[in-house]
Amino acid sequence: MTETDDILLEAFSKTLRRRRQAKKLSQEELADLAGVSMRYISLLESRRHQPSLATLRGLCLGLGITMVEFMAEVEVGLPDHKPETD
Amino acid sequence: MTETDDILLEAFSKTLRRRRQAKKLSQEELADLAGVSMRYISLLESRRHQPSLATLRGLCLGLGITMVEFMAEVEVGLPDHKPETD
Repeated sequence: MTETDDILLEAFSKTLRRRRQAKKLSQEELADLAGVSMRYISLLESRRHQPSLATLRGLCLGLGITMVEFMAEVEVGLPDHKPETD
Repeated sequence: MTETDDILLEAFSKTLRRRRQAKKLSQEELADLAGVSMRYISLLESRRHQPSLATLRGLCLGLGITMVEFMAEVEVGLPDHKPETD
């Protein structure tokens, strides 16, 4: 795990927790919606595991948002984030 | 691997290949930029592996795009894709 990965995981875990709480879901409820275990949600939110693409997708479906919406919030938390210039 | 995961992997692998070719990068060149092996790029593009969050981030850095840009193209390839309403 590099330092960059650690920052990425932190941004991910914070976004996950914030979005889950905004939906007033417990870790268990989100786990059910996303098709993973509650233990896995706990590991993700405490930065002890990073999600695969399929898990990210499941979490977003459970949260009722797109992966784009989720990743936009993750990227805001990264140090090299720049507003879109296109 | 569920059918949904398979569709997700297909959308991901197509986006990866299209973006790599648009940058005129070989699999080897992208591997170097993303900090992974060429074999791994090959596995991703042939849908035999799905990326972790850190790998997705590395690929996007190598391609010079944000994760949001990348995931927007992936989501267009998913059957339940709807234009943003927000």
